[in-house]
Amino acid sequence: MIGTVSHTANSDNTVVLSVDAMGGDKGPSVVIAGISLAIKENPDVHFLVHGPESELKFLINKRNINSFCTIINVKGVVQMTDKPSYVMRYGKDTSMWSAITSVKQQKADACVSCGNTGALMAVSMIRLRKLPGINRPAIAILFPCLGANKFNVMLDVGADIRADENDLLQYALMGASYSRNGMGIAQPRVGLLNVGTEENKGRAELKVAHDLIQDMSTNGNFEFIGFVEGDDIPSSKVDVIVTDGFTGNIALKSAEGTAGFIASSIRSAFKYNLLSYLAGLAALGPLRRLKESTDPRRANGGLFLGLNGTVVKSHGAADATGIAAAIGLAYRLGSAKFTTRLAARVASVSGYHEDTEEYGK
Amino acid sequence: MIGTVSHTANSDNTVVLSVDAMGGDKGPSVVIAGISLAIKENPDVHFLVHGPESELKFLINKRNINSFCTIINVKGVVQMTDKPSYVMRYGKDTSMWSAITSVKQQKADACVSCGNTGALMAVSMIRLRKLPGINRPAIAILFPCLGANKFNVMLDVGADIRADENDLLQYALMGASYSRNGMGIAQPRVGLLNVGTEENKGRAELKVAHDLIQDMSTNGNFEFIGFVEGDDIPSSKVDVIVTDGFTGNIALKSAEGTAGFIASSIRSAFKYNLLSYLAGLAALGPLRRLKESTDPRRANGGLFLGLNGTVVKSHGAADATGIAAAIGLAYRLGSAKFTTRLAARVASVSGYHEDTEEYGK
Repeated sequence: MIGTVSHTANSDNTVVLSVDAMGGDKGPSVVIAGISLAIKENPDVHFLVHGPESELKFLINKRNINSFCTIINVKGVVQMTDKPSYVMRYGKDTSMWSAITSVKQQKADACVSCGNTGALMAVSMIRLRKLPGINRPAIAILFPCLGANKFNVMLDVGADIRADENDLLQYALMGASYSRNGMGIAQPRVGLLNVGTEENKGRAELKVAHDLIQDMSTNGNFEFIGFVEGDDIPSSKVDVIVTDGFTGNIALKSAEGTAGFIASSIRSAFKYNLLSYLAGLAALGPLRRLKESTDPRRANGGLFLGLNGTVVKSHGAADATGIAAAIGLAYRLGSAKFTTRLAARVASVSGYHEDTEEYGK
Repeated sequence: MIGTVSHTANSDNTVVLSVDAMGGDKGPSVVIAGISLAIKENPDVHFLVHGPESELKFLINKRNINSFCTIINVKGVVQMTDKPSYVMRYGKDTSMWSAITSVKQQKADACVSCGNTGALMAVSMIRLRKLPGINRPAIAILFPCLGANKFNVMLDVGADIRADENDLLQYALMGASYSRNGMGIAQPRVGLLNVGTEENKGRAELKVAHDLIQDMSTNGNFEFIGFVEGDDIPSSKVDVIVTDGFTGNIALKSAEGTAGFIASSIRSAFKYNLLSYLAGLAALGPLRRLKESTDPRRANGGLFLGLNGTVVKSHGAADATGIAAAIGLAYRLGSAKFTTRLAARVASVSGYHEDTEEYGK
């Protein structure tokens, strides 16, 4: 199933990315177009492209990017409707499985797929396994925000609907590490999502998590700003928002729904009469700039955190620009040796944990 | 403390509203201005206005609305920083306490206050008590949405951070009743907020609540559309969104934060250069219309549900338009005898509950 690979991860300064070319809503041609865009940004990259050889060869030749790509010939494709349990049992001959396997075998520094999220997490879990010391892996996304960074990190947004205080502590650590290595923020400000900012607010596990994260901030090389509320998620006062996967999913989708509602209301407002239609034409430039600066495609890429390997989940409906953004994220994390750094960080925390258990509990 | 009241609730077609004139961020002059606006909309209304007589008399005289108002002279004011527990113990001589008392004594059909939410809920709970059959009262808000209704009902948004399956069932019933009496929707479509729409998704209590609400839909005179996701909150596919107070608070504030972020981004986009500034001037009309159609002031009013009395919480920072909107909501619910109808609905459900317990459990 796995073809001969000319480049291997870590062999030189070239970053090797493993890309699942199949499984997106728009098929492999958009994925190859995204790879082509990404090469223009970062030429010191090589791709292991997983999917049916005949189809991929044609698309890669057409873009004239053969020297950047090694095709790994795999026939099977995970469908959007496939259950994770089905893929775990019968999915060995799929492009998704193969793409993750290249990371497991350390032939690639990171993996990108726009396939089915549930299946991708399930395959990532069984192939890569959890990092020592991590109880629940998380999915982190980039949330458009005010301020210089343009995007805040929020996790978990749906890998697991539960999270206890220790999971939330691990999310804080992993999110801070992601912010540092993926966003270039040396000392990220971490906030814990709650229904009020006073220390006595919220569920019991949040109060315990508050103190655990506080205690860890110096060791973890981040600043803990305490509880934050839902309206702080797009603010410039925080870089990393920590929450459980249920709450994170609701917050993210509520924001998406609101943005969609406002976009639709703006369109209606400009269609109100001829004058407003003309005003809309005049406003096209600024509104296009607005759309660009808040474009979700520019932040495309949910990052799976807490595994022995870096996996970026691109949106299923992503276009070439979106896929190039996901690849750009995988490139930054791959070249920063993110997995190794995160593992070291988590290991140091597990050590700390044993200390506190001996000390106080 | 309570002055002589010339009008009493239910005595004729006049709706009597009890208004706490103090405690808002902008002081009593804005509250009286709101009352004055509301009178223009609905002249068959009388107000019991609670606060320091000398101050209120001057403001009411100035607006020439004396015949619509009875001042209830109370000196104390609940501050935004007062703890609910403090107000419960020492708050008897405050305008908030007095305003709720008028509802308790059935001198008013509903109460409106823009004071401290926590204190208002605490005073409402001890003065009005929970409706028989209700375990946890809820706060319902109106969420701007696509479609003809303009606003969806969402509850709970923060009365209580917990809710089990039976609480969620009660929220569904109360939300449907609110939608019927407050929004005029005969057969509201109720959705249960979750992280996916498949029936096997989410927390255990949500799966149980799904079936409980489903079973109740015919009796409860609503349509249950099953699980909805965060991006459905502003959609036209649902009228009532049911969730626990923790999740509801996060969803609401995440949406508020996103709307604020987009508004700020629109302003920046139009300030980009002279051309975009001119485009912004041209777009002022449509954008003002947009602002009006999605104006939170038009939906001002969190409704406390599950008490022996109707209490509308206006936003603390509301202006006269916002306060008039909150009064308008209290008026609609007061004239629909909402509390009585809701009590009857909840009683019928409690009966149903006993039936099912005899029948199946």
